[in-house]
Parts: sequence; structure tokens; C-alpha cells
Amino acid sequence: MRVVVDAFGGDNAPFEIIKGAYLAHKSYNVSVTLTGDADIINKTVEENSFDFGDDFVVVDTKDVISMHDEPTTILKSHSGSSMGLAFNELVNDRADAFVSAGSTGAIVVGGTLIVKRIKGVKRPALAGMLPAPDGSHYMLMDMGANADCKPEMLAQFAIMADAYLKNVEGISNPKIGLLNIGTEETKGDQLHLDAYNLLKNSPVNFIGNIESREMPKGVCDAVITDGFTGNIALKLIEGTSMTLLKMIKSVFLKSIKNKLAAIMVKSDISSIKKTMDSSEIGGAPLLGVRKPVIKAHGSSDAKAIMNAIRQAISFSQNDVIGNISENLG
Amino acid sequence: MRVVVDAFGGDNAPFEIIKGAYLAHKSYNVSVTLTGDADIINKTVEENSFDFGDDFVVVDTKDVISMHDEPTTILKSHSGSSMGLAFNELVNDRADAFVSAGSTGAIVVGGTLIVKRIKGVKRPALAGMLPAPDGSHYMLMDMGANADCKPEMLAQFAIMADAYLKNVEGISNPKIGLLNIGTEETKGDQLHLDAYNLLKNSPVNFIGNIESREMPKGVCDAVITDGFTGNIALKLIEGTSMTLLKMIKSVFLKSIKNKLAAIMVKSDISSIKKTMDSSEIGGAPLLGVRKPVIKAHGSSDAKAIMNAIRQAISFSQNDVIGNISENLG
Repeated sequence: MRVVVDAFGGDNAPFEIIKGAYLAHKSYNVSVTLTGDADIINKTVEENSFDFGDDFVVVDTKDVISMHDEPTTILKSHSGSSMGLAFNELVNDRADAFVSAGSTGAIVVGGTLIVKRIKGVKRPALAGMLPAPDGSHYMLMDMGANADCKPEMLAQFAIMADAYLKNVEGISNPKIGLLNIGTEETKGDQLHLDAYNLLKNSPVNFIGNIESREMPKGVCDAVITDGFTGNIALKLIEGTSMTLLKMIKSVFLKSIKNKLAAIMVKSDISSIKKTMDSSEIGGAPLLGVRKPVIKAHGSSDAKAIMNAIRQAISFSQNDVIGNISENLG
Repeated sequence: MRVVVDAFGGDNAPFEIIKGAYLAHKSYNVSVTLTGDADIINKTVEENSFDFGDDFVVVDTKDVISMHDEPTTILKSHSGSSMGLAFNELVNDRADAFVSAGSTGAIVVGGTLIVKRIKGVKRPALAGMLPAPDGSHYMLMDMGANADCKPEMLAQFAIMADAYLKNVEGISNPKIGLLNIGTEETKGDQLHLDAYNLLKNSPVNFIGNIESREMPKGVCDAVITDGFTGNIALKLIEGTSMTLLKMIKSVFLKSIKNKLAAIMVKSDISSIKKTMDSSEIGGAPLLGVRKPVIKAHGSSDAKAIMNAIRQAISFSQNDVIGNISENLG
């Protein structure tokens, strides 16, 4: 089992990525290939005594595709970037799974056009994993790969989510909901009205519309949505939580009395933050392509990368892709 | 200045609605018309010594349109409901403004087809007022009147928002953003790409795309969006805040030490809740119709109704509707 990791993708590249890959190697006994500037990678590995074992591979390139590059440049001018070469390792079967914290757009383009879609899949989609208050998590799919969706795409997202949750997470009959502006069948815009009708007749365990007010409670295993709404929802949960936690923090700093109170509850408040921290869960699998591709959060630290690699291993070892293929057929 | 209030709309009707109307009468010296079961209204007024003055009017009806009724029934089978008769008072010039905490759908249908659109308006929209952490607030429009939108509708929403913020809130040059999945001009689905282009050439102070992560911070005066996304966003902010506050509350109840800490910060935490409480701000104006219509939150208490009536007075006294008409022309 070998995972190829784009060592130069993400806000904290390369150090946190390399460290995360090392932690994953140590914890899960996985072989690692790193792509990116070999001088820097080797220097980092040596200086930090990261022992990757005998079958450690570094694929050298100075080029990096950034958030500001057009995603489609992964196919041509940036095909030799750290991400481009990581895709190269994956499609040439020199790696079983792919992890990158780099440009989401480039991962979606590379996944779709280099790794290629599973036969019958209209459009691959990113399945984000969001934390629920009870310490569990739920899937939000699509979280942003496809801004414009058709009802048939949403129906396929549900089938792919179902296959992933069953095979990777071991949920026997995942509850799947449609993100909508009311619980009634008659609610929503035309896209969601039509998607509802398709999902009603789908083989998945469709539990109906989910209102966004209920979503953060983790009321189902997968929330199906178009990539525009999914991306708005994902970032709004982040923004709302950050805003509220910042206000609470300012309360705790307001006076000596409040600072004292803060000390008394500090560890418990930290445990809330930990529960609601998506880096604990892993990255977002790109579902619908022929090999396991995991998009880690751009701000991933070593722990988040380690968790994304754990997820990539599980994605590869349980036949999600074969299962998606069967269920779509 | 007379406001007609649907005394039987909303979760806390009729008591909180009647009380809120009384508080508004007392605070703002506004004449009030209440619609609904006259026996219950008069009994409530008497028992609580709500002195509405000499020009108090009650329009009697036993019928109420509920959340479960088809919104279009406001035009026929429920035209004689408390909401229907309130619209009747408004369009027959026996009231200057309308407030209801009842069915949003029925208010939109009644506003559009009984009160009627301002000439040139494609579709009226609900302008929600959301609290910002600094104690100010911002507008989210459309928050759910139109699930399916066209780019031209979003451009009109911006013009209507601009007129309201200038005239009612006295903001001289409101900053108006488009809710989107990236700040760049090239981001979003086709609807938002096209809307961006229209807004760029609009007379309003368009500051570009706003990511949902930034929205809760109150980075602009009005966030323009389609009613589907707006409704998802509105309820997601509510759901995320509720979930997080519940988790924090459970921390404060966890041990005697934590309970003690809770006592120490209680009033400051309450002031956060008050800052983030949308009932402090008022209701959502339905912009684009010929007379002032305010939709109060379904869970409105007396204070929220009082604030919605204050807003209705200001909406009526400042020529928002004339201004919208001019700017669209």
C-alpha cells in the first residue's frame, strides 16, 4: 500500500505535509511517495530524523501549482508541478492513493481528466466531512467541485456517498438527506424539486429534505447538495463558528474575574473546539474517479495530513470504486 | 400613521403579538389595527389593561392561515383570514403599513398579488436583517421569497436593498456584496457569474463577491443572493449558533467548578446572545411591493413585534417605495 502525497500543496507546505506523511508512515505502516523539490524534502527529512523506511520515494520538481493558477493548468503548463507529478504516480500505478492540500480546483480537474471518471459517472464530487456535536461526523456532498448541477448529478452523488459510507466508514444503511429550504417534498428550486423525485426512487436510504438549521446537529450520515450551495454552507459553518468563538473569547478576556472563569473551563472549551475541528476527521474524498483521491484542507497541519492519509488507505483498501461502479450500472 | 398587525400570525399569537402592538403604540404613538378573533383580542386587551387609545381598530375574523396551508390560499379560501384582512386594510388605505409573523409564503403571495408589485419590479424579495458581532446588522436579500432566480432579479434586489438602507437606515452609500463561492469575478455558478456582470454596471456601490465565511462578520451592508441560497444561509447561521451555544452551555453545567465559572461570565455571555438576537433588529421587509409589508420572525415575542412595527413606521415614513420606483426606472 503506497500513498503519494503532494508535499508542496497547502498553506503549511512543505514542513507540515512532510511531517504528516511521516506520522502516517509510522502509525499505519504505509509506503510514502512525496512529490516536490527533492533538495528541500530530503533536507527536511534528514534534519528532523523522519524515518520513512527503505521504500521511501521522492519525485523531484521545482514547480508548484498555486491557488491563483487556473485549475486547468494542471493539465498542461503545470503538469510537471508537485501535484501534477503526484497524479502521474497515481495513474501510472506507482501509488494506490493520492493526497494533496493544494488547489481544490486543480485537484478536481486533475481527478476528472487525468485519473478519469468511473464509467457512468456524470461528474465527480467532493465529499466533505463535517463534525457533529456528539463527536461523530457527517458527509456534505458536493462541497464545491460542481457549481452548476443537474438533478441527475445530485442523484449520483447520493449513490457515491452511500458506497463510501458503507465501505469506508462501515455504516450499514447510511441515512441520506437532501439539503433544502423546507422539509416538505414541494419545497425548493426546480433543481432540488427534481432531485427529490430522483432520490425518492433511488436505491439509497433517502430520508427526505434536510433544512440547513438541522444540518449542524448531524441529523443524517450524508447531506446531498449542489456544489454552489455546499460550498456556501461549508464556509458559513466555519465563519459562524469562528465569529461566535471569537466573541466568547473576548468575553473571557474582558476582566480579571472573567479571565479566572476562563481558566476554570479552559480544557472543556478546548474539547469543544477539538470536537468541532474538521482536521481530526481527515480530508474530502473526490468521489467518482477511478482511483482514491483525497483533498486535504488547505490549512492542514501534520495531524490533518496524517488523518487524510489514514482515510486514503481506507478508501483504497475497501472497494469503494468498484462499489460505485456496480451501483451506478 | 397606522399599522395593521395580523394578531393571529406566528408561533406566539395572539398574546405576544397583541402585547407587542401595545408596546409599539405606547412607544411610538402609532395607531394600531389588529385583525383576528375580536372576542379574544378584546378580552386580552382588557385583562392586561393594554391601552391602545381612542383610534384602536379591531377587524374581526375567526379564520387563520397556517404554515401548513398552501400560500396561494391567501387569495381565495383564506382571503378572510387574519392575514387576508390585514392585507385588505393595507390595500384599501385604511393602514399605512402591514406587520405579520405568519406564513412567509402567504405574505410573499399576498404582498405580490394583493398589494402588488411596484412598476418594473420583476419579483419582490424578503430582506432579512442579520446581527453582526459589533452590534450592527446587515441585510440578506433575498432570504427566501424566490427559490428560483434570474440574474436580472438579483440586480434588482441590489437596487431595492440600496433604497431601503439609504432611506430607512440612513446609510449614505451602502456597501453591497454578492454571496458567492469565491471572491474572484470568475467564481460561481452561471446565475452568479451573470449577476456579477449586471451588478458591476449597476448604480449601487457594488463591492464584489462575498464569501460565506466572511458574511457573519458583517463585512458589508447588504448581501445579495437568490432566495434558495439566502434561506439556506439564514437557517444555517441559526443552526450553527444554536449548536455551538448548546455545547458551551453543557460545558458550564458539567461540574461545580464550571457552574461557578458560568456565574462569573453569565451576564457577558448573555450580552453576546443579545447582540446576536435578530429579534432586537426587527422583521424582514418585503421589498418591491407598493406599500410597506414587514414579515416578523415566526417565533416573535412582544419585543420582536414592537421592533417590527418600529421598522414598519420608518419604512412608511421614508419614501423607500418612491425611491425604488425611481431607481428602477
